[in-house]
Amino acid sequence: MGDETMRILVINPNTTPSMTDKIAEAARRAARAGSEILAVNPADGPESIEGFYDEAFSVPGVISRINEHPQADAVVIACFDDTGLDAARCVTSVPVIGIGEAAFHTASFLSNKFSVITTLGRSVPAIEQNLQKYGLATRCAKVRASEIPVLDLEENSPEIRRRIAQEIEDAKAEDGAEAIVLGCAGMTDLAEELGHEHGLPVLDGVACAVALAEGFAGLGLRTSNLGGYAKPRPKIYAGASAPFAPGRGRL
Amino acid sequence: MGDETMRILVINPNTTPSMTDKIAEAARRAARAGSEILAVNPADGPESIEGFYDEAFSVPGVISRINEHPQADAVVIACFDDTGLDAARCVTSVPVIGIGEAAFHTASFLSNKFSVITTLGRSVPAIEQNLQKYGLATRCAKVRASEIPVLDLEENSPEIRRRIAQEIEDAKAEDGAEAIVLGCAGMTDLAEELGHEHGLPVLDGVACAVALAEGFAGLGLRTSNLGGYAKPRPKIYAGASAPFAPGRGRL
Amino acid sequence: MGDETMRILVINPNTTPSMTDKIAEAARRAARAGSEILAVNPADGPESIEGFYDEAFSVPGVISRINEHPQADAVVIACFDDTGLDAARCVTSVPVIGIGEAAFHTASFLSNKFSVITTLGRSVPAIEQNLQKYGLATRCAKVRASEIPVLDLEENSPEIRRRIAQEIEDAKAEDGAEAIVLGCAGMTDLAEELGHEHGLPVLDGVACAVALAEGFAGLGLRTSNLGGYAKPRPKIYAGASAPFAPGRGRL
Amino acid sequence: MGDETMRILVINPNTTPSMTDKIAEAARRAARAGSEILAVNPADGPESIEGFYDEAFSVPGVISRINEHPQADAVVIACFDDTGLDAARCVTSVPVIGIGEAAFHTASFLSNKFSVITTLGRSVPAIEQNLQKYGLATRCAKVRASEIPVLDLEENSPEIRRRIAQEIEDAKAEDGAEAIVLGCAGMTDLAEELGHEHGLPVLDGVACAVALAEGFAGLGLRTSNLGGYAKPRPKIYAGASAPFAPGRGRL
Amino acid sequence: MGDETMRILVINPNTTPSMTDKIAEAARRAARAGSEILAVNPADGPESIEGFYDEAFSVPGVISRINEHPQADAVVIACFDDTGLDAARCVTSVPVIGIGEAAFHTASFLSNKFSVITTLGRSVPAIEQNLQKYGLATRCAKVRASEIPVLDLEENSPEIRRRIAQEIEDAKAEDGAEAIVLGCAGMTDLAEELGHEHGLPVLDGVACAVALAEGFAGLGLRTSNLGGYAKPRPKIYAGASAPFAPGRGRL
Amino acid sequence: MGDETMRILVINPNTTPSMTDKIAEAARRAARAGSEILAVNPADGPESIEGFYDEAFSVPGVISRINEHPQADAVVIACFDDTGLDAARCVTSVPVIGIGEAAFHTASFLSNKFSVITTLGRSVPAIEQNLQKYGLATRCAKVRASEIPVLDLEENSPEIRRRIAQEIEDAKAEDGAEAIVLGCAGMTDLAEELGHEHGLPVLDGVACAVALAEGFAGLGLRTSNLGGYAKPRPKIYAGASAPFAPGRGRL
Repeated sequence: MGDETMRILVINPNTTPSMTDKIAEAARRAARAGSEILAVNPADGPESIEGFYDEAFSVPGVISRINEHPQADAVVIACFDDTGLDAARCVTSVPVIGIGEAAFHTASFLSNKFSVITTLGRSVPAIEQNLQKYGLATRCAKVRASEIPVLDLEENSPEIRRRIAQEIEDAKAEDGAEAIVLGCAGMTDLAEELGHEHGLPVLDGVACAVALAEGFAGLGLRTSNLGGYAKPRPKIYAGASAPFAPGRGRL
Repeated sequence: MGDETMRILVINPNTTPSMTDKIAEAARRAARAGSEILAVNPADGPESIEGFYDEAFSVPGVISRINEHPQADAVVIACFDDTGLDAARCVTSVPVIGIGEAAFHTASFLSNKFSVITTLGRSVPAIEQNLQKYGLATRCAKVRASEIPVLDLEENSPEIRRRIAQEIEDAKAEDGAEAIVLGCAGMTDLAEELGHEHGLPVLDGVACAVALAEGFAGLGLRTSNLGGYAKPRPKIYAGASAPFAPGRGRL
Repeated sequence: MGDETMRILVINPNTTPSMTDKIAEAARRAARAGSEILAVNPADGPESIEGFYDEAFSVPGVISRINEHPQADAVVIACFDDTGLDAARCVTSVPVIGIGEAAFHTASFLSNKFSVITTLGRSVPAIEQNLQKYGLATRCAKVRASEIPVLDLEENSPEIRRRIAQEIEDAKAEDGAEAIVLGCAGMTDLAEELGHEHGLPVLDGVACAVALAEGFAGLGLRTSNLGGYAKPRPKIYAGASAPFAPGRGRL
Repeated sequence: MGDETMRILVINPNTTPSMTDKIAEAARRAARAGSEILAVNPADGPESIEGFYDEAFSVPGVISRINEHPQADAVVIACFDDTGLDAARCVTSVPVIGIGEAAFHTASFLSNKFSVITTLGRSVPAIEQNLQKYGLATRCAKVRASEIPVLDLEENSPEIRRRIAQEIEDAKAEDGAEAIVLGCAGMTDLAEELGHEHGLPVLDGVACAVALAEGFAGLGLRTSNLGGYAKPRPKIYAGASAPFAPGRGRL
Repeated sequence: MGDETMRILVINPNTTPSMTDKIAEAARRAARAGSEILAVNPADGPESIEGFYDEAFSVPGVISRINEHPQADAVVIACFDDTGLDAARCVTSVPVIGIGEAAFHTASFLSNKFSVITTLGRSVPAIEQNLQKYGLATRCAKVRASEIPVLDLEENSPEIRRRIAQEIEDAKAEDGAEAIVLGCAGMTDLAEELGHEHGLPVLDGVACAVALAEGFAGLGLRTSNLGGYAKPRPKIYAGASAPFAPGRGRL
Repeated sequence: MGDETMRILVINPNTTPSMTDKIAEAARRAARAGSEILAVNPADGPESIEGFYDEAFSVPGVISRINEHPQADAVVIACFDDTGLDAARCVTSVPVIGIGEAAFHTASFLSNKFSVITTLGRSVPAIEQNLQKYGLATRCAKVRASEIPVLDLEENSPEIRRRIAQEIEDAKAEDGAEAIVLGCAGMTDLAEELGHEHGLPVLDGVACAVALAEGFAGLGLRTSNLGGYAKPRPKIYAGASAPFAPGRGRL
């Protein structure tokens, strides 16, 4: 299979550059030699994504970033909600991988059942919707909220580690979880260590998504453009919000 | 129950004013005496919503319109994809009703099984995702695409009627459908007549949503703000895209 | 939409008139000005409905009451089991709404997930069957039994309120419930107060059903008579039990 | 296991004695030496059961018959809708088997997937509800309506056989069915011959139910009386409709 | 139905003869007069079956035993994992019944919901996979692991009884279980006594399977050989592992 | 991530060396530079795997091959039934990927819905069971049988290509499939060409599995050994069939 350099566009959908940096690091740790990681975030939108509302304001910026990087061989959306995933698949033919779905699918190859540990309770319904949409709800034992806000993860304090560790032990004892999915891009640097400590696979979506993106792009696979992911029909997009107006253009 | 005037904000998420007018008319036909229908559309966004991409660019405008009308007693989102429904429920406490979900739930009270007739095949996956999310996928026999683009519905030609009529007959014969849901706000004026002609309930989501909005608002019901629909946490929203920055404000 | 008086026939399927009165009151509180609530109960059958057995003996009486009131614009069946709902839809073309399904569907518009609090554990399987039949089992976090017998609800003691309040708090903490459905017509007068106290929507099926009945009847909607709700075929009904023998008549 | 005579009470829930006779014959053909088949039908109720309405008026009579025969070792309800099954399980501790569920479960032991061939389209939703309730909807490829009224099956004409044969061939070709369930007690005498002709198991619910009833009764198994099938609480049953008033009695 | 002697081949898939004897005894207790129980185990394979690995090495031996007993009227596979069930159905036309599925289906006739109590946690995923495959996952409240190794059940100590009793009480209180399925052939002699003590049906799969095998064989039913259970195509089987090489033979 | 050579053990579970060669070629085409593909097949077992029976006799040989290659960094099981996948995960800690699951998961990243085209109808139930077990049944529109025997694929005739092409067109038109999964390792060399001709992703499981194996191994991921994939307990394995007797050894 192709050995040329692979360019993976990793988009942090929120507007906090320090989190983009952290994600970029995690992506580079996961990438194979010869892959190029380009990590970006939108200019506009919320500083963190915690639930449905924040998500809505991140999608246009995510789409813009994809359009600005047509040379990417694959795209990773690095928010655990898989913000804008379906829309993103309509504007590019290269594979688009959300870190949430990447982690769920990967866990399905390594365990019979996994639990998810996310940040705030308000994020749980969006994750549960995604699991049901992907078909993997039956593989997930429970989505657990640690009640740690996204940006607090930046500090990586002992208290935060303790709370996540407790959720992992509860997931093993109460849920019968055989693997853990860490449900926030901000937890990316904890995965490996927690896995060793707790004796089961602890998955970070960023690493999973980079590996899948490399794999699919390496095989030359493309997103289907039949049906739901067909390219947008040419039409008029009024106003400033649409970064990409295929065909008939902007008003 | 309350007999004061009820104000229903009906948002057409696309930017085609003639369609907003058509929807307003349908909403007014459905509303009870004493209800006030305020029909609006966003300033920005696509002229029609056909699939995931268009949807993404409509949501910020929908949220803006809700924020501009804090006096509404209930909100109706008048696109069959229920564009931005979850985000909308985070910014207002009054009931928010999507016309897709309104029609699916209503059909569930009138029939054992219904079929949906929508516009383009590319819209089918979004509708099927919604049905699964709402729980009503088991009540829907089939989502059928008539392959009529949204804006062509504006002309309401005999050929368009013929194609929809054919889909209804096929749904009765092949799907065992006991009711029909018309899967586009643009089909709103066909429902009653088609119902008479084909001898089964043919539901228009706009009418269903207005009736439900009046009913729920009349009972004084509010969207839950525990969990997934909790009010957004105060945070910084960078750039122009966020019309509503609760708390910490805009960069 | 029609502004003429709407006549809502509310049937309490058990034979306890004081409960019928309580339901009538709740229905009138929920109804809009101009609606007429006619609340009745069967002459024959159990004094309360607690599980499958009692239910079976209530259905013929429910059907009789529907047949005696052909002028109704909509019918509400005011037992949380939705006693005889499918049979009732075969004998009248106007919308028939069960208070259980009304509450489940309404909760689905206001929350991602709801829990149900019912009377006795023996009633749980019937409710779970209904949730699965309606498609809304995935929206219900848990059906909880307070172990309060139906008729004890008549007294409305502090102990009863305390027990229901405890179940609500448990549903929030353990089930992730964003809304509560009160699972018995006898709890109808507690809903509003409990909602205020516990800070989430607490739904009473009687109110929900009246609002939906008014809404659907106002739109002129009719139950489908294709398929499962087709009018009964003319045939001989032996004996005293059948109040309505379409066609060939009684032996 | 017990070798004493086993008494199987077979209740035809409709009031057509010739059909009761036909069912009795089928039950006796299926029963083992030493079993005693007592076949009865209610005094009151519809002459045939075709859908939800007829079903409702049959249940009280079914319960009466069970109460009149306390010496039965097991009960078979011989209507494919499994009319009154849940209520029946509340009034007797011996196993109660519906012929619909008996056939569905039996087919699950002999094939990966089965199709059902029933009488009228109006009966399909009730059968589909039952399949979902039992959990076996995923095992059923399709419920097919032959559009033959129940009582027409009495004549057993060549045309009727031809129509059922056609449905079997369609089920093999279109549904991937590996077995067929005949969806009406009136088809009971066709099963064996059709099985031979079409080269796959063709199941008659009466035979299946008798075999299961004998098997469960032979093991001394009893219906659970925890939860949903608990014995009815003592209460007042007003009027003539309730044949069995445990405890507090009749008004 | 046939009164001739019925020959039930009961295969213990593990290679521990004392467990085969225990199973044989249970089968004979359950069998009707005139049935002949032939209990065997493979010559090769693991001494107990605890999870996926052991299962894999038991299947060839199970198939061998079936081929060695072509005169059997029905086959029971007496491991709770239903080891090799699908393969077994391809080599014989008589009914093949797994003790796991037998117990699950039987419990579905006696209760709304049941819980399973099995040996080790490692066996839970295989059981949950089977429940989902059979369609009965919705009928099972929970699969509970007692963490008692299979062969320890041979001693039948008070401590073992105490642990199983505790799981039963927990299943009643926490799962809402109305019946219990004992999830290991080694628990077969505890069922009746535990049922009496705990006041609900406690099912032993061996007894259930024997009764179903007798019932289905008595009706002359055969496994479908259309589709998934079609007889194996003639082909070359290399090496020693294949006991039965239909058609083209062995290399 | 690691740049050292990766060793992927690819096991063809049938005993036809020419098919092993074909699979090896496909695996090498898919592998990245620096990966080493070791393709093997068992010494014992059927020459092709067509359904449940053949599958059962292939598993012991698959496990043997894994045990003989402890230096592998990941294992691919190259039969579309994912023969022995769960057992294999118990004997090695490196990731084990079935080509069926690899293709299903990959298709889920590229399309909303896919159809599978397999060989014989008898293989369909095993594939449908797997889809349900993996959770991806809701993502699969239909499993289609081309009725081409596995070994006939070796010749790769125009007629075979024509039949597969027809199934692809039918899947697009009738199933709404947005991607195609080729359901047999023997079809591996057709995927790319068919994808180009039919304008949608056509996935070959061998290529997908190799890419996933490289990705997961590159991240250092291991199969969970909690729960269902725990290492086998030490015990006696009687006879010749068990290639690997952890702990207590062989009789």
